[in-house]
Amino acid sequence: MGDKSFRVAVVGATGAVGNLMVQVLEERAFPVAELKLLASARSVGRTLKFKGGSIAVEELREDSFKDIEVALFSAGGSVSRKFGPVAAESGCIVIDNSSAFRMDPKVPLIVPEVNPEAVIPRPGIIANPNCSTIQMVVALKPIFDAVGIRRIVVTTFQAVSGTGKRAIEELRQQVAQLSEGRPITREIYPHQIAFNCFPHIGAFLDNGFTEEEMKMVNETRKIFNDPDIAVCATTVRIPVYFGHSESVNIETRRPISVAEVRDLLGRAEGVVVVDDPARAGYPLPIHAAGRDETFVGRIRQDPSVENGLAMWVVADNIRKGAATNAVQIAELLLARNMI
Amino acid sequence: MGDKSFRVAVVGATGAVGNLMVQVLEERAFPVAELKLLASARSVGRTLKFKGGSIAVEELREDSFKDIEVALFSAGGSVSRKFGPVAAESGCIVIDNSSAFRMDPKVPLIVPEVNPEAVIPRPGIIANPNCSTIQMVVALKPIFDAVGIRRIVVTTFQAVSGTGKRAIEELRQQVAQLSEGRPITREIYPHQIAFNCFPHIGAFLDNGFTEEEMKMVNETRKIFNDPDIAVCATTVRIPVYFGHSESVNIETRRPISVAEVRDLLGRAEGVVVVDDPARAGYPLPIHAAGRDETFVGRIRQDPSVENGLAMWVVADNIRKGAATNAVQIAELLLARNMI
Repeated sequence: MGDKSFRVAVVGATGAVGNLMVQVLEERAFPVAELKLLASARSVGRTLKFKGGSIAVEELREDSFKDIEVALFSAGGSVSRKFGPVAAESGCIVIDNSSAFRMDPKVPLIVPEVNPEAVIPRPGIIANPNCSTIQMVVALKPIFDAVGIRRIVVTTFQAVSGTGKRAIEELRQQVAQLSEGRPITREIYPHQIAFNCFPHIGAFLDNGFTEEEMKMVNETRKIFNDPDIAVCATTVRIPVYFGHSESVNIETRRPISVAEVRDLLGRAEGVVVVDDPARAGYPLPIHAAGRDETFVGRIRQDPSVENGLAMWVVADNIRKGAATNAVQIAELLLARNMI
Repeated sequence: MGDKSFRVAVVGATGAVGNLMVQVLEERAFPVAELKLLASARSVGRTLKFKGGSIAVEELREDSFKDIEVALFSAGGSVSRKFGPVAAESGCIVIDNSSAFRMDPKVPLIVPEVNPEAVIPRPGIIANPNCSTIQMVVALKPIFDAVGIRRIVVTTFQAVSGTGKRAIEELRQQVAQLSEGRPITREIYPHQIAFNCFPHIGAFLDNGFTEEEMKMVNETRKIFNDPDIAVCATTVRIPVYFGHSESVNIETRRPISVAEVRDLLGRAEGVVVVDDPARAGYPLPIHAAGRDETFVGRIRQDPSVENGLAMWVVADNIRKGAATNAVQIAELLLARNMI
């Protein structure tokens, strides 16, 4: 990658994902010449650690991007809609973790292991997909390439970290309250999350699905560039801190054996196969937490349909599902001399 | 039902389900003339409350059933295999919560709302289905009757109470250990269950599915008396104390609208429809806990397949999934003068 290095900004640096973006930039030794941490006015005064030093958070403004080449956004859709185009016009490549531009036909939606060919060079906007979509398409990519995919029925088990820092705190607090016999308090979620689960992530739409569920439908089709893949998703929040798990049933277009799937996934970039039932070996959210790979297990033929396969897919939702994937997009651009 | 009352035994009375069988017999005012509590020798000396009194636990022996008419078993498969036939030969109707006889073609497998016609009169053995199967078939029965069911893809979110009292304690203990920063201890489950989940309920079989998953396949076919229903299950343990939740996708044989499904389920015995997304209304395990009904929500057309439907089904796994269903079988026999 040579010795070129880049002026990078992280927008929403004090949030759970933004914070982790800073950490992942350091961990993966992305060549950062200068790091600018941007957030709303109320976070000004805070500092974050980076490579042994300390960087002060600055207020996000229209002129924040003047000298920046790579801008990683994770501050919600409205901030992205307002400042993403500004940053791109200033000459940045914007890698945006919000859902603001994901379905915009002019904006590529990238998972580096899946559709690297769709990236665009600086300046411009690239969208980072939804967490639950990313890990699913990473796991399915080798199968899609080998035999095609006709239909996906997926049910998710999603960690509270996907909602952000305050949701992590809400689960902690409710667990403490219940253990002390106190009534629970609730601000973030519509229902108690401690020792409970609910099929409600994102707003409900007219078709009875949630936004999160339809992201899995629409983003999967866009990333695979295959509008014919049929997807039905049920997305569920469970009391886990880090790591989304997914029960994925698929119908492939052509037959493939479980042994072939294991072999393909075993060689796939970014995938770790953990599939040793005899020793209780299968992916777990507590094992995936803190890791950048996508873990796949419980791979089995689904005899209830022609060319059916079932599997269990787990990844750290704020790493591969968000921060790591964003940094990997920057790495992809770097490798292709596109920054 | 007249004024006849019955000599009832509960085998495994000190376990989570057996204990609840005693409670449900009282709650539902089953006409008990005499209640005998049976367990292994090490539980002798304990007493359980029943109708304001206290009943001592007796040791289970071959001659325990001499004067008994109704024997509710929940002490595991090996106890059922040994003592179930003994009790039936003594003249009892045995209602067995273990998996010992469920797939025996001579033993009916009964969910009173679904296949009451299959019961047999005293003496004999009737099997109580697996918890995850019961709530699913209760929810699907009205749809099965109306338009037939071709295929079911189900993913479960199962509470630790399904494993028993020691698993409830293990979750409590791990939560306390983690909150105090201590290492967790583990005796019942193969992995940490606090703030984690794993797709492993029952032993793994050669086909890659677990026993629990194959119960959902085989018991569903037997209860609906339809060997052609295709079922694929993924069964997952989550850190919830009481109440199993299920993400159920089905393909019906003939078309049916969501409105018709809601209407059918709204009138179905034992079913409560909770389906008001605009107000975050859908079934929750914390709401189902302590209730005898099966709760259904998130009912929507699944556009990814012809005649597709998706829904979310929740019930108290040790009530409707075990103790209540067993007592309801006894009630059914009583109503039909079959005891």
